[in-house]
Amino acid sequence: MRIGELSRRTGVTVPTIKYYVREGLLPPGELTSPNQASYGDPHERRLRLIRALLEVGGLSLAAIGEVLAAVDDRERPVHDMLGEVADRLVAEHAGEPDAETVLARERVARLIAERGWDADPDSPAGAALTAALAALARVGHGAFIEVLDAYARAAEEVARADLEFTARRVDREDLVETVAVGTVLGDAMFAALRRLAQTDASSRTFSTE
Amino acid sequence: MRIGELSRRTGVTVPTIKYYVREGLLPPGELTSPNQASYGDPHERRLRLIRALLEVGGLSLAAIGEVLAAVDDRERPVHDMLGEVADRLVAEHAGEPDAETVLARERVARLIAERGWDADPDSPAGAALTAALAALARVGHGAFIEVLDAYARAAEEVARADLEFTARRVDREDLVETVAVGTVLGDAMFAALRRLAQTDASSRTFSTE
Repeated sequence: MRIGELSRRTGVTVPTIKYYVREGLLPPGELTSPNQASYGDPHERRLRLIRALLEVGGLSLAAIGEVLAAVDDRERPVHDMLGEVADRLVAEHAGEPDAETVLARERVARLIAERGWDADPDSPAGAALTAALAALARVGHGAFIEVLDAYARAAEEVARADLEFTARRVDREDLVETVAVGTVLGDAMFAALRRLAQTDASSRTFSTE
Repeated sequence: MRIGELSRRTGVTVPTIKYYVREGLLPPGELTSPNQASYGDPHERRLRLIRALLEVGGLSLAAIGEVLAAVDDRERPVHDMLGEVADRLVAEHAGEPDAETVLARERVARLIAERGWDADPDSPAGAALTAALAALARVGHGAFIEVLDAYARAAEEVARADLEFTARRVDREDLVETVAVGTVLGDAMFAALRRLAQTDASSRTFSTE
């Protein structure tokens, strides 16, 4: 197809498509005449993935470039490629660790060990959990940590559903797009479901007063 | 205690405390001399609640004023007061509903009915879920909705833990503060746990390739 058709199908403007080609995010089309190129399904899939990472995942173009490199490196195992995407979808939590952070990190490492998770407390996700627990302690609500095990069980259930859905994607690009969209919009979906379920639980708990 | 001591204990500056009194968010201290007032535990609790709603909950001072009115209205049932807080903690999802939104809202209403939740599809939480489902459909990932039931079950589990923890607070102010902090930081906690559990599930699913 011509670039105009590719633009129409993906909703990405022609100048943006050309920009992605110049930046190496999208392979160039096949030249059919000195100033005309032809694009195929792989271009369409790649453009959809870039849009999902950009618009839903909120990734920078530089980060998208690194994710695409992992997608294109066919020697790279799927688990490893998905880890690359997942790490990019977590906000950075850096800085000098204070006393709350040190304690919270220990708790995170213990939780991972207790649940037998193949996960790293110092990965971006581990650091994000550490940051949340440290923030609770800092605002004087460290006791809330007692819900941690119930949360971890529920997170396992959600992750199992995520992976069952994801594992059915065959194509590497499709897999990565699904993980990015599912992770970001899945968080929003779960947060809203939690509020609805809380409303119900609050009604059951307090309506007899 | 004097205003300086109240400031030291809560980490809120003296000018800010005075500002809250002028705005009616904090009751004035008891005058002990023409230009000296004395503050007690209720002031300290109230200031901690204001800080939690402001800094963790991200509420505006106007919204905080309305939450505090619900806290102070002792005739108002607890479930109702907590609903007031919960509604404020959800981002607004307004605008003309498109086709995806109309379909998503139907799905949300059906889910609530199926699970027998005492919750409203048109509450802020219901609208947030509708917005997430519509966004999935709009980016071409409407199929992800098949995880919805697993997510809803997990959300029930999390909400049960939330309420068990919350219901042990006796004081209305403490209850509201716990709900605000637990809701916001609980979302961050769960999102991080989901990533960790996904890493583990991905390793189990793809490591045999």
